[in-house]
Amino acid sequence: MLPELKDLNTLREALSNAPGPDGNALQGAAERNGQLTKPPGALGRLEDLAIWYASWRGDARPQISAPQVIVFAGNHGVTAQGVSAFPPEVTVQMVMNFEHGGAAINQLAKAAGATMNVHALDLDRPTADFTAGPAMSEEELLEALRVGWTAVDHNADLLVVGEMGIGNTTPAAAIACALFGGDAADWTGRGTGVDDAGLANKTRVVAEGIALHGGSGDGLEILRRLGGREIAAMAGAIAAARALRIPVILDGFICSAAAACLANKSEGALDHTVAGHQSAEGAHAAVLAKLGKEPLLSLGLRLGEGSGGALAINILKSAVACHSGMATFAEAGVSDG
Amino acid sequence: MLPELKDLNTLREALSNAPGPDGNALQGAAERNGQLTKPPGALGRLEDLAIWYASWRGDARPQISAPQVIVFAGNHGVTAQGVSAFPPEVTVQMVMNFEHGGAAINQLAKAAGATMNVHALDLDRPTADFTAGPAMSEEELLEALRVGWTAVDHNADLLVVGEMGIGNTTPAAAIACALFGGDAADWTGRGTGVDDAGLANKTRVVAEGIALHGGSGDGLEILRRLGGREIAAMAGAIAAARALRIPVILDGFICSAAAACLANKSEGALDHTVAGHQSAEGAHAAVLAKLGKEPLLSLGLRLGEGSGGALAINILKSAVACHSGMATFAEAGVSDG
Repeated sequence: MLPELKDLNTLREALSNAPGPDGNALQGAAERNGQLTKPPGALGRLEDLAIWYASWRGDARPQISAPQVIVFAGNHGVTAQGVSAFPPEVTVQMVMNFEHGGAAINQLAKAAGATMNVHALDLDRPTADFTAGPAMSEEELLEALRVGWTAVDHNADLLVVGEMGIGNTTPAAAIACALFGGDAADWTGRGTGVDDAGLANKTRVVAEGIALHGGSGDGLEILRRLGGREIAAMAGAIAAARALRIPVILDGFICSAAAACLANKSEGALDHTVAGHQSAEGAHAAVLAKLGKEPLLSLGLRLGEGSGGALAINILKSAVACHSGMATFAEAGVSDG
Repeated sequence: MLPELKDLNTLREALSNAPGPDGNALQGAAERNGQLTKPPGALGRLEDLAIWYASWRGDARPQISAPQVIVFAGNHGVTAQGVSAFPPEVTVQMVMNFEHGGAAINQLAKAAGATMNVHALDLDRPTADFTAGPAMSEEELLEALRVGWTAVDHNADLLVVGEMGIGNTTPAAAIACALFGGDAADWTGRGTGVDDAGLANKTRVVAEGIALHGGSGDGLEILRRLGGREIAAMAGAIAAARALRIPVILDGFICSAAAACLANKSEGALDHTVAGHQSAEGAHAAVLAKLGKEPLLSLGLRLGEGSGGALAINILKSAVACHSGMATFAEAGVSDG
């Protein structure tokens, strides 16, 4: 059961006391894998994925039948600095598009057999511009975390969290820079497609944020000062999934930045996650490297919405279907070399 | 309609007169892609895939509803040279496993919503050992090509061809070496898992095959001398799919070697195909590079059976679902930047 998220310390405690993988299920799955009708290792990463999934579900022969995709939307005061190629009103327009089934993530969730939920977080109340002060108050951060924390279906058996928020590659870059060090330019990319002048401006904005907020406490405090409501909600959902033993497929740059705020707080906090894809957004590869995650897909996506994570659901489903559905050498009467 | 495959020249003519992509559908799909509710290019390769698929189906807004997976099985005289870690009777055992639904490809085809057919080609009559003479007579090659040519469901809208044949990475390596040049060692890998001594022996066998048959005519003649029945059947099916305008997802090393025999015969003969994955079998990356194909997945699979191709079906389905299912900026009332 999930505790009520009364304050930030409840979350910090949940992260510190997070459950680990089930050793018996892991061992049972590894043994089963060794008996399936294929040469050892011939399914490559699908074998590792299935065993990993089994260990988190506590079931050596699991099924994936209830994946959930959740899209969180938020608006960002920092867009006043001209960091995006799109105007901020697109956030609410895209939320309508999600609700009417017209966005990429709707098609991808459907193709993956996943339910999809959309949470718009105070779109008419953007976060503060982080070049002037913290993006959120502690209460605002907690509210946003709570939206994610309570959005996870306790009966889901796989989770993808995505986002929509015009301008949100800028807070994501600032979070990555604050958590992992280096220069603002190392973490700042073109987002939905700013030109060279736009990229220079974005880099300046990130650098100003780091100058004001860098080195300010743990991942949750970085999230409060440099993040956004949808980013906090993603972090809340990823943390809730851990407590519920629901494996998570991470999406792209913004999702990974949200996850990184938890990783910074607690060793192994992201062990229940895999990286769905490597985004074309410049610094995503570097964030995944810092998190020690090897992406499942690398197809040049840079859309957000959870699109890369949702696209990877069928890979994980296929891995688990092989693991749990294949015959063993003994069952099939096949000579095992 | 597909002509009857009376002789090898019928196939050569079919390849020479193969239909190309539909220019109108291609243009219509590219225009539609530009109007969908996403930043330009944000779906990366999914956009290219959808437009490519539309062009081959002659439909600017296509669906994928009837994928077909066909697995061909054959046995190889060259196994007498000790080239595989598994005994040749495993081929017929695995065909039984396919028919009973217990193999990896059964689970992957099901997860992709694909029908699956299995064709065992004269398993009790292995091809000749190519170190002593041609693997097949012209009549035997034609028979095997015909099995593939007639196995394609004319109502399929996507095709994956896979194989089972103990020892068949050896003929595949020999075909690649004969078609693309270089040394036997460049194209010979560990297959289902031979050790260092086994690899040295395999390389010797491939080199002997090249010494006897290298430079012997076009791809179909190379296929006859160095190939196998299941490899020829795959080539026949890929050629039939072209004539029927059914896009094909190539599987791994052996499938790519089969396809290469057609590419050698006719410029653009594989334009209706994409590479589903990059196999862990050593030389597959080199074969894909020679064919000019960028793999969709790279997950360390080296199983054959069509597994990597089938795993990629859901990627292509997702690409087409986004393309045909998403709302345009105008339909959704979203500002397009």
